[in-house]
Amino acid sequence: MVNWTLLLVALSCVNFSVCGREPEYFSPRSCKELMQRYKTKEDGLYYLSTASGVVYQTYCDMTTAGGGWTLVASVHENNLYGKCTTGDRWSSQQGGSPNVPEGDGSWSNTVTFGTAEAATSDDFKNPGYYVTAEDVAVWHVPNNERVDQWKVKSFLRYHTETKFLKNYRGNLYNLFKQFPVKFGVGSCPANHGPSVPVVYDVGNTKSNHNLYGPNIRGASEPGFITFRAINTERAALAICSGVKPTGCHNEHCCIGGGGYFPEASPRQCGDFTGFDWDGYGTAVGWSASKQVTEAAVLIFYR
Amino acid sequence: MVNWTLLLVALSCVNFSVCGREPEYFSPRSCKELMQRYKTKEDGLYYLSTASGVVYQTYCDMTTAGGGWTLVASVHENNLYGKCTTGDRWSSQQGGSPNVPEGDGSWSNTVTFGTAEAATSDDFKNPGYYVTAEDVAVWHVPNNERVDQWKVKSFLRYHTETKFLKNYRGNLYNLFKQFPVKFGVGSCPANHGPSVPVVYDVGNTKSNHNLYGPNIRGASEPGFITFRAINTERAALAICSGVKPTGCHNEHCCIGGGGYFPEASPRQCGDFTGFDWDGYGTAVGWSASKQVTEAAVLIFYR
Amino acid sequence: MVNWTLLLVALSCVNFSVCGREPEYFSPRSCKELMQRYKTKEDGLYYLSTASGVVYQTYCDMTTAGGGWTLVASVHENNLYGKCTTGDRWSSQQGGSPNVPEGDGSWSNTVTFGTAEAATSDDFKNPGYYVTAEDVAVWHVPNNERVDQWKVKSFLRYHTETKFLKNYRGNLYNLFKQFPVKFGVGSCPANHGPSVPVVYDVGNTKSNHNLYGPNIRGASEPGFITFRAINTERAALAICSGVKPTGCHNEHCCIGGGGYFPEASPRQCGDFTGFDWDGYGTAVGWSASKQVTEAAVLIFYR
Repeated sequence: MVNWTLLLVALSCVNFSVCGREPEYFSPRSCKELMQRYKTKEDGLYYLSTASGVVYQTYCDMTTAGGGWTLVASVHENNLYGKCTTGDRWSSQQGGSPNVPEGDGSWSNTVTFGTAEAATSDDFKNPGYYVTAEDVAVWHVPNNERVDQWKVKSFLRYHTETKFLKNYRGNLYNLFKQFPVKFGVGSCPANHGPSVPVVYDVGNTKSNHNLYGPNIRGASEPGFITFRAINTERAALAICSGVKPTGCHNEHCCIGGGGYFPEASPRQCGDFTGFDWDGYGTAVGWSASKQVTEAAVLIFYR
Repeated sequence: MVNWTLLLVALSCVNFSVCGREPEYFSPRSCKELMQRYKTKEDGLYYLSTASGVVYQTYCDMTTAGGGWTLVASVHENNLYGKCTTGDRWSSQQGGSPNVPEGDGSWSNTVTFGTAEAATSDDFKNPGYYVTAEDVAVWHVPNNERVDQWKVKSFLRYHTETKFLKNYRGNLYNLFKQFPVKFGVGSCPANHGPSVPVVYDVGNTKSNHNLYGPNIRGASEPGFITFRAINTERAALAICSGVKPTGCHNEHCCIGGGGYFPEASPRQCGDFTGFDWDGYGTAVGWSASKQVTEAAVLIFYR
Repeated sequence: MVNWTLLLVALSCVNFSVCGREPEYFSPRSCKELMQRYKTKEDGLYYLSTASGVVYQTYCDMTTAGGGWTLVASVHENNLYGKCTTGDRWSSQQGGSPNVPEGDGSWSNTVTFGTAEAATSDDFKNPGYYVTAEDVAVWHVPNNERVDQWKVKSFLRYHTETKFLKNYRGNLYNLFKQFPVKFGVGSCPANHGPSVPVVYDVGNTKSNHNLYGPNIRGASEPGFITFRAINTERAALAICSGVKPTGCHNEHCCIGGGGYFPEASPRQCGDFTGFDWDGYGTAVGWSASKQVTEAAVLIFYR
């Protein structure tokens, strides 16, 4: 199926002789607008554009909890053995050094990378990441799944309903400007960013909790998504998917740390941080399960 | 010359009020369809789109053996001295480690990279790589040639005519799912993938054979393209261009190995593998010629 | 604001039934053509296309000195502590080795990277880089500024008025073919490329000079842009922004060296070369100021 959003834009411009008018009229900024204005109802890949005219393709979830969810990013661990090496776009290849405490700064800059179609095989960030939204949804999808399999193969899916992004200037780009993902910027537990309650679409608090190591289950509460957690050594982590930390060894349940990780450096440096602390995919001690280790984390806005 | 494919799509949609109809009608999936449906006859850059709506630009060869060949990938060695370092997109920058036996997995995933215009200066892979086709063509073009010089400057060009891709679910993406380019997945010679006879468009079996080192000429037969060859140490190589191996030191005539290469690791790791084993471009012993070492390998489908 | 260039192309094609005609008629090749033909007057992001049909988005400066300036590249130093490491697209990650004297060759090949919107957060090169032009403009913009802030936040802006590119086949791509940015290709001062006088739009010769270390002020003359300077050790540097070297320690005021830098290798290897020789951002000895160190260099054509 081809999605004709891009063409609709051109059409409007032709048929109504309105090319110079207020642009918001023609060009969907988000999957939500696409759904509401053009009555588009199918999940799939669509073309959207930003207020500044950047045209990009991404995936729309048009059915979950009313639909209108725009995929804006994915965090994919290509090699958990590699510590801040190639493919670590969120944590950076230079994250191992205290000279670069913010790594690449991907969480709060306008650099984009990857493609929607490869979002479960590589890191992905599109311009939708800095568009205004209200809520966030997260999917955990096994690596290398094709687009049409994402929904059925995902083993954890949840979303927020509190419209919390309104309190942080409308997107994670601005939220992470306020709460930088940067080594040394604060301490645990005083300086965590927000923890927001979530509603599960696939999975539940128990299955969510069991994705992480047993030690983490005693040091976190499921049913939340947490932004910019700090760990004992003052390293910063971008997202704790499905949990609110109650302890400070957050590198075992949070991802996307950008910058320096002092403990046994660089062993906690990488897109999935210290998920393999007690062995790769072992689900013992502090180690996460193989299932969550080998799945991409897809981030949506609405 | 601008190629108006993308605009034709929009036009159809405007003039015939058919935006909601079966999309295959408007949007060329391949250079073959572009030639047959739109009577396009000139070699050059065109916009194509996939069934899922991804629009991309690539090169069409509209004249060789009936025309309709779509460029889907190029394998470019940016630095044969660098062993699985930057620029080794097919073999990966993490290919030197047995922990990552499949490297980046580029041969069988949906990650794309590069641009058509830079296909002789950098690795290139577009969404056409996983579109359904029947045959393959290969060009060896000196590095850094501009698009309009590719055809005249290429020193080796051949294509298959057996429609062999029909037996492997229509493309190399699926072929390499069946025959993974992964360390330790099989042994030599028992587990090679298919060798398919080729017809030469530029060059011949003798000139093809002479591109590789003299030792390789005694360990291979020209006039074929081979997929997923294995070597003595159980490393896997994606493509042996123009030859069928009869021995097992295949790292000297095959390219694009993804993953670990045990022998003198990492000396055989990289997009052009062990082409410099007895010196860079020396054409002595196991070393390939300078000509083939400094040329990109362009892969087409029809 | 959406800029409707891409749509104008489609429109022309629809309304006037001229899809087969001379393409130059429809499709702006540059910001200058966009300004002259379509009377576009606002600074911002627009879609342009090349003669070979590549469509890309970039920034147009429509007001400075008559307007019509196309952003074709940016040189961004992501980590001056990293010496030819990730993010050094102009100097290359392989620039530290004498085996690769030209690095990635980015100054004279058709590889493109980055996006206009992230041009102050990452290296950027678009196909406009090899389009025919006459003059060059340069902006120094603090890192991570959003597009609409570039002009007001830039602390140095200048342009040439001599139409010097006419003497070098119309662009920097060809100029650097003639003057390769390559280790060992010449000596200092005999083999520098052209130094062209500039007119300042923001800043002046004094403020320009003060951006570099005090030692450099005694070894260069402000009021020029210099291409392909050589240093004492025969390393090559692409651009000396705002200055003409009169000595040979040019790695402290020139950027974008592609290839090997022998002195204290790899300490001078990177997009901003040896700007931190006497400490990062210290502005003492040979070290550049923090202001110029933490700003992207945007390159425009007209």
